[in-house]
Amino acid sequence: MRFFSDNAAAAHPAVIEAIARSNRLDTAYDGDAMSQSLDHAFSELFETDVRAFWVLTGTAANCLALAALCPPYGGIICHKDAHIEVDEAGAPGFFADGAKLILVDGPGAKVAPDAVDAAVGAIRKDVHQVQAKALSITNATEYGLNYSASEVAALGETARRHGLAFHLDGARFANVVVSTGASPADLSWRAGVDAMSFGFVKNGGLNAEALILFKPELAEEVAVRRKRAGHLASKGRMFAAQILAMLENDIWLDNARAANAAAQTIAAAAGERLVYPVEANEIFVRTTPEEAAALRDQGFDFYDWGPGEIRLVTSWDQGGEPLDRLAAAIAAL
Amino acid sequence: MRFFSDNAAAAHPAVIEAIARSNRLDTAYDGDAMSQSLDHAFSELFETDVRAFWVLTGTAANCLALAALCPPYGGIICHKDAHIEVDEAGAPGFFADGAKLILVDGPGAKVAPDAVDAAVGAIRKDVHQVQAKALSITNATEYGLNYSASEVAALGETARRHGLAFHLDGARFANVVVSTGASPADLSWRAGVDAMSFGFVKNGGLNAEALILFKPELAEEVAVRRKRAGHLASKGRMFAAQILAMLENDIWLDNARAANAAAQTIAAAAGERLVYPVEANEIFVRTTPEEAAALRDQGFDFYDWGPGEIRLVTSWDQGGEPLDRLAAAIAAL
Amino acid sequence: MRFFSDNAAAAHPAVIEAIARSNRLDTAYDGDAMSQSLDHAFSELFETDVRAFWVLTGTAANCLALAALCPPYGGIICHKDAHIEVDEAGAPGFFADGAKLILVDGPGAKVAPDAVDAAVGAIRKDVHQVQAKALSITNATEYGLNYSASEVAALGETARRHGLAFHLDGARFANVVVSTGASPADLSWRAGVDAMSFGFVKNGGLNAEALILFKPELAEEVAVRRKRAGHLASKGRMFAAQILAMLENDIWLDNARAANAAAQTIAAAAGERLVYPVEANEIFVRTTPEEAAALRDQGFDFYDWGPGEIRLVTSWDQGGEPLDRLAAAIAAL
Amino acid sequence: MRFFSDNAAAAHPAVIEAIARSNRLDTAYDGDAMSQSLDHAFSELFETDVRAFWVLTGTAANCLALAALCPPYGGIICHKDAHIEVDEAGAPGFFADGAKLILVDGPGAKVAPDAVDAAVGAIRKDVHQVQAKALSITNATEYGLNYSASEVAALGETARRHGLAFHLDGARFANVVVSTGASPADLSWRAGVDAMSFGFVKNGGLNAEALILFKPELAEEVAVRRKRAGHLASKGRMFAAQILAMLENDIWLDNARAANAAAQTIAAAAGERLVYPVEANEIFVRTTPEEAAALRDQGFDFYDWGPGEIRLVTSWDQGGEPLDRLAAAIAAL
Repeated sequence: MRFFSDNAAAAHPAVIEAIARSNRLDTAYDGDAMSQSLDHAFSELFETDVRAFWVLTGTAANCLALAALCPPYGGIICHKDAHIEVDEAGAPGFFADGAKLILVDGPGAKVAPDAVDAAVGAIRKDVHQVQAKALSITNATEYGLNYSASEVAALGETARRHGLAFHLDGARFANVVVSTGASPADLSWRAGVDAMSFGFVKNGGLNAEALILFKPELAEEVAVRRKRAGHLASKGRMFAAQILAMLENDIWLDNARAANAAAQTIAAAAGERLVYPVEANEIFVRTTPEEAAALRDQGFDFYDWGPGEIRLVTSWDQGGEPLDRLAAAIAAL
Repeated sequence: MRFFSDNAAAAHPAVIEAIARSNRLDTAYDGDAMSQSLDHAFSELFETDVRAFWVLTGTAANCLALAALCPPYGGIICHKDAHIEVDEAGAPGFFADGAKLILVDGPGAKVAPDAVDAAVGAIRKDVHQVQAKALSITNATEYGLNYSASEVAALGETARRHGLAFHLDGARFANVVVSTGASPADLSWRAGVDAMSFGFVKNGGLNAEALILFKPELAEEVAVRRKRAGHLASKGRMFAAQILAMLENDIWLDNARAANAAAQTIAAAAGERLVYPVEANEIFVRTTPEEAAALRDQGFDFYDWGPGEIRLVTSWDQGGEPLDRLAAAIAAL
Repeated sequence: MRFFSDNAAAAHPAVIEAIARSNRLDTAYDGDAMSQSLDHAFSELFETDVRAFWVLTGTAANCLALAALCPPYGGIICHKDAHIEVDEAGAPGFFADGAKLILVDGPGAKVAPDAVDAAVGAIRKDVHQVQAKALSITNATEYGLNYSASEVAALGETARRHGLAFHLDGARFANVVVSTGASPADLSWRAGVDAMSFGFVKNGGLNAEALILFKPELAEEVAVRRKRAGHLASKGRMFAAQILAMLENDIWLDNARAANAAAQTIAAAAGERLVYPVEANEIFVRTTPEEAAALRDQGFDFYDWGPGEIRLVTSWDQGGEPLDRLAAAIAAL
Repeated sequence: MRFFSDNAAAAHPAVIEAIARSNRLDTAYDGDAMSQSLDHAFSELFETDVRAFWVLTGTAANCLALAALCPPYGGIICHKDAHIEVDEAGAPGFFADGAKLILVDGPGAKVAPDAVDAAVGAIRKDVHQVQAKALSITNATEYGLNYSASEVAALGETARRHGLAFHLDGARFANVVVSTGASPADLSWRAGVDAMSFGFVKNGGLNAEALILFKPELAEEVAVRRKRAGHLASKGRMFAAQILAMLENDIWLDNARAANAAAQTIAAAAGERLVYPVEANEIFVRTTPEEAAALRDQGFDFYDWGPGEIRLVTSWDQGGEPLDRLAAAIAAL
């Protein structure tokens, strides 16, 4: 029973069916009708005119966006635990040609406006120090916390004040939409976000993420950068089909709701042991090494997360008996 | 009836089935059993110990290899019509951090050993000129010609003599194996090739190419570079499943055989109009603009290729009536 | 008697004196009064508001400019014999993060407007091919030819029409100003040039070149890029002092006049042997290998330049007897 | 009376004289006899076979070395207050094509072996996290502390154990040699250092630093990288002349001795107010804002360094009355 990560789960059957259905001769790259319809689909979803690109991974989506938002000689403010800093193998520096991540701290991997102010304020305004040009946040955060729409807006205002572009890593954006009840628009462009990755893989997709540009004027550059990074697949309709299948009938919302609900089940069982409030689909639980070992002995897989903590992640397809057994096992610790 | 490109064709049904079958919870990235078996599968195929990586595109496969073979300050000798020069949006310069392509000419996009000698000889051996560090060829070439095993070996010897790493763009490698009857080994590492892209997408795959390293010591670096370029998919088993499905039961060979045979059908019809001998699955035919228009009026799609030439490409699934009609139409010009 | 290159000559005594005079405690980097006065000095010279930066080499001046004018994913059209292509070790690809040089041909290393049209026209307007974003010319060219002000203006109009930024490598700009009689303004921004390197080292400077921006809005970025490339010297007043010394009393013009005159002396002696008209301070002379050897036996040093040609370059300090002897020796061939 | 920084001081007269003396026609770039003699001069100094390159700035020296020691996808461990992190405008990321600085902390900007162990230990050994490939320290540190030869050796052993290349920023190396009495060899290669910048500009040079390679096999690559970064000056003899002038008659040691002695004079006056022991030529003094203002009113210039601290830096030429007045003024606070 694996609670390692939501990115290892199976894809939703509708996704596989959509790929199979799309398997016919068509225009190559992103010239097919499905790829061409993404702009429209996401513009509807976001209630504004956006440009949408399929890409293979969140790393690609994030770093293509960052490369378009930050010059090679600029800095990108992000949390020290941000995925782009910790888990993307230096991809921001590769895609953005040497741009530097400027790290801030804050509980639960959340970036606070005054942390941004402090980071900018600490930089001498001369050519010897890398000047901040962008701000990047992750929602939900790497510790499963949400920024509310108003929190994002406060950061957007902060970014605007300092002349920073604003990027959102939305690997688990669906979980936030479901959890906060806020609209995609309120959680993004209305709050000042310029570009975002919109995650599907952790939410029942197979291997397709969307890169959303709220500044359509960036689209030409991003299209070139995607090709230049080897991310323009020949049969791109496979990516578009996945994404459209997830958007249709609100599968992306249903899946996120299921994962969030599963997380709440575990959270309730963990009670006082929770390290952070559970707001999306990640649960961090305080355990002794012996307790962690006992859970593993019962067949549950998960990561240790620093001393005395474990991380559990629920997926769209995790419910029923395994979940109940995990909840019971945790409650029994 | 589309004869634009083999990269727009449908994927072989076995590929879609394999993807569907692989859709289950498994270890993420390339930790699953199928991904882990690629080294073995390709080592068998190549009769030597290789390292194999799935990637999304030929551009990624080529440029990850080139980045591992050529330092940022080096040059890569290739044909002026090579895909890496003409159709990869400058990706070699991106992946290899500014490395430069050094262009040579030659009929049919083939690089001759003496062209390599001349290119190297023209470079002053000082720090002002970019020194050649690698040689890259495409087999089959961008004009559908093959290098025989001995031709590759002659280039391998030339590369060795000049201290150049040797890269092979094998987007249509299957077509060459089928057409020449040479073994994969004789067409690659036995001929001095250090790394190659092994194409599946143009040959019935969906969206998976293989990067093959004949120098296993490069594997660690390439694995990091793949992640850093955003090409390490979460559910990588989807890629491995495609590739394994193609290798099983020799689908990759059957598909290439079918495409090559279709090309020969057209070639026979074109006769004296052929610009190049047809050795793989691309056919370049001399036509007047009026003739090209006439073919299009009959429902055939293809690219114009310079003045007075058209390019036709056959796919694994193109045979039967449309093919016969095209052959007849060309014969009737 | 060395006629290898003007970049090996001694510096003008006024330059050395200026360095010595500037050797005092002052504000570091470019905060000193002399560095700060460069904008004004060059704005006077160019009759418009410019931003001027000292840098160490022409390579740095050219490539910092190109990095500001061309995005990493763009192409820079230049002559196949341009210094940035042939003699800067791939620096454009390094400074501009992988940007590609797109080569055109033309006699005497001159770029013609229709060659630019053809180069742009040959690029498919899609994401697979690198799109041209800048044009770079060298005046005087690598073969000692000048572009007149109207020729530069025609190229500027061509660049504007294609949406290309326009860069000028002015390593021997002084020789052109003297030779054509055109104003610096007419040879640059009035003709559409956006940024240029303004050479001093080949014209009696020690080790200081100027980077001139005709778009002041690029200055902030270029200042950062200069520092990031390790070109912001601590005691930058040394560079500013050199440049100001050259500008004062028109030493830069006198020196160029002397070098050009010396070149004319040799040109007159070479007569029919000249490969190109001599318009600046480089002379290409047809000789047999035996003739070249005979000249060397008489103590003259120079480069062979392809089969049957030698290159002679005159410097600001080359006149008098050695020059007369060389002219006589050539006339006597 | 400026105590801002040693990099703004005048150059030693012998340096200016050497530049003037070297001002004659000679082989360009680094082909002149003086440039060619640097390997020998530094090999003598370091008692082993080294390769030495002149460059314009410490930033260039450091980052050319780092680019040769760390691959683009690697990480460089350094102190969070290191010059390469704080004051080089992201140059390590530029020169090393996206390589990342991995920051550690420690008093006085010193890196301790266990901090390196901890930094390496915190990195998961997978492709998702940037792996450390190099260690960089600054001696004297940015806070004027020295590493003794045995401290460097302990770090060298640590680096070796983790497979890290070892770089030394020696902007104020002369001050350390004088202060510790250790030999250049013991402070560098005998302690495991692979490459270092050897500072002259802060110690009486004009604008020349040396890059020293203790692994001669890196020389070919570094020579190319220097050119590619626009740092191969045409009249490089100017750089070589400066460096040789400083080495002759031990001017580099005398100058460092003078600066260190001046620092001790101030240190003695500051007494309990010192933030760090004064081991080289930087003095950090605790003052109230009012006290700092009072010093400035008396004509002393210096930087504020965080709240309640000022930084004073002494130069080779600072002694006599201004120094005594500063010492008295501090003692009188």
